Amino acid sequence: MGRVTERRRVIRIRDGAVSTRPDTLVAEEPLEIRLGGKPLAITMRTPGDDFALAAGFLVSEGVLASADELANIVYCAGATAEGENTYNVVDVRLADGVPVPEITLERNVYTTSSCGLCGKASLDAVRTTTRWPLDASPAAPDGIDPVRNDPVRSDPNRHDQVRIDPIRIDPATLAALPDRLRAAQRVFERTGGLHAAALFTTDGELLDIREDVGRHNAVDKIVGRALQQGQLPLSSCVLMVSGRASFELAQKAVMAGIPVLAAVSAPSSLAVDLAAETGLTLVGFLRGSSMNVYAGEHRIALPAGAATPTD
Amino acid sequence: MGRVTERRRVIRIRDGAVSTRPDTLVAEEPLEIRLGGKPLAITMRTPGDDFALAAGFLVSEGVLASADELANIVYCAGATAEGENTYNVVDVRLADGVPVPEITLERNVYTTSSCGLCGKASLDAVRTTTRWPLDASPAAPDGIDPVRNDPVRSDPNRHDQVRIDPIRIDPATLAALPDRLRAAQRVFERTGGLHAAALFTTDGELLDIREDVGRHNAVDKIVGRALQQGQLPLSSCVLMVSGRASFELAQKAVMAGIPVLAAVSAPSSLAVDLAAETGLTLVGFLRGSSMNVYAGEHRIALPAGAATPTD
Repeated sequence: MGRVTERRRVIRIRDGAVSTRPDTLVAEEPLEIRLGGKPLAITMRTPGDDFALAAGFLVSEGVLASADELANIVYCAGATAEGENTYNVVDVRLADGVPVPEITLERNVYTTSSCGLCGKASLDAVRTTTRWPLDASPAAPDGIDPVRNDPVRSDPNRHDQVRIDPIRIDPATLAALPDRLRAAQRVFERTGGLHAAALFTTDGELLDIREDVGRHNAVDKIVGRALQQGQLPLSSCVLMVSGRASFELAQKAVMAGIPVLAAVSAPSSLAVDLAAETGLTLVGFLRGSSMNVYAGEHRIALPAGAATPTD
Repeated sequence: MGRVTERRRVIRIRDGAVSTRPDTLVAEEPLEIRLGGKPLAITMRTPGDDFALAAGFLVSEGVLASADELANIVYCAGATAEGENTYNVVDVRLADGVPVPEITLERNVYTTSSCGLCGKASLDAVRTTTRWPLDASPAAPDGIDPVRNDPVRSDPNRHDQVRIDPIRIDPATLAALPDRLRAAQRVFERTGGLHAAALFTTDGELLDIREDVGRHNAVDKIVGRALQQGQLPLSSCVLMVSGRASFELAQKAVMAGIPVLAAVSAPSSLAVDLAAETGLTLVGFLRGSSMNVYAGEHRIALPAGAATPTD
């Protein structure tokens, strides 16, 4: 437990000179997630926050959506030859009445009943499974462009007439997130081997940060912690990830009801498609004062004089 | 097929200025791998080289080790509502007599028969499963340090007396690989969203390169292609990956009989442990003329005057 880093001997070669020294590495260990005693998945993860990881994984898989559905999570008492607890097996018990999904290989990722597996089926699976659907677009009053609708938003008298999307984030706030993420990364500096995920408010305040050898684990830990604290859906938060935005990360954001996903690097085509389909705001290449908005731009407070985005 | 990139509309924000333009993204689609008609795994991958990906995946899983064990691989004829082939399901048929593994969730990654799952069990599973064990250390003649044993290596008369590890690589050769990898990356420049894996000779000659939205897929494609061409084990090759070196990537190298794994970034603790256990040479932080050797240093031609690595 808490073995976030480990030390190993390393031979360093620099400009032909050779030296030997201890090096700090990110710890990686398998974690088996069981559901009601039955093995569900094994993930290679950085130890720590294992209960949160398990809970968040089950949110992503559509098994859990709120704290009251979770009875408890325990480390499975060890059964090594020495009778030791390896702290690498957790068992999740659902609350009474919460349906235990059928555990099959197919179910483990995306339902596929035929040879017709395709990206669209993956998108549909997420859209129909999530318990926390996002607002795909703000309701707009006649003649007002909701994308740059600040006057409406700032007029309290309009609130009962117009459903305003509750999240609106300033590009300058987004631009500040990568530096805040890096400043909060504790282990990365020592090992260079970790992915990070962080949860921010729309004002850029850091709510939580997790580091892991796998970026999907870092996100699961964030989401699982929020579930345990009764905070799902995370409908007024921004999820920031240190690397690329894959379909899997976009899926995890959607399943937790997170409306904005921002990534330092590029998204994949399927991540963008999922965002467009579910109403997720997806920001990529967030570097300096520059960023790309791939979907859900109605949550970005674009400057009033900006060129009109068109299809 | 061949949908390596896709175009999507993007809103670019730069220093407060907003513009809309088409953007090139790395394509991501699910691939279901079936074995004899039964679903085995689903991976999110960049389309292309799908048969190689499936074959390489089965090498990593210990199902395939040579070309004659593979009967054929086909795209599963499509069964979408429109009767279309999505080219996202492949079926692998093994040659007669090759045992089909029992397909279970546990088997899918690491055998675990109890609560005692731990890193050591993961290492043991790879070490005992691989059909192409690596030389853990070179046999050394009395009084000669095999680590810096160039005189022996260059003396043809000694070859019948001393078992020389067939692979020895110069640090300067390793140092040149990242630039060669980047020069060969075709799609990365356009999308920024791809991981790359490349196979080099010990002289630094590029043999193969694959790009994918998932780094494990890029390695599977390399290994699968080699299997299809009857080239396993890849016992005189260096595998170079664009990012970090996880347990999973080290496992894939070992299962394919690749003796040297080099990564641009950090390895994890379990990757280093696996390398030490199986005899894999693991190089990390390969940048400029600098690198760290975490295991298997007997394959690195350290300069004669170098400090002696000690434990």
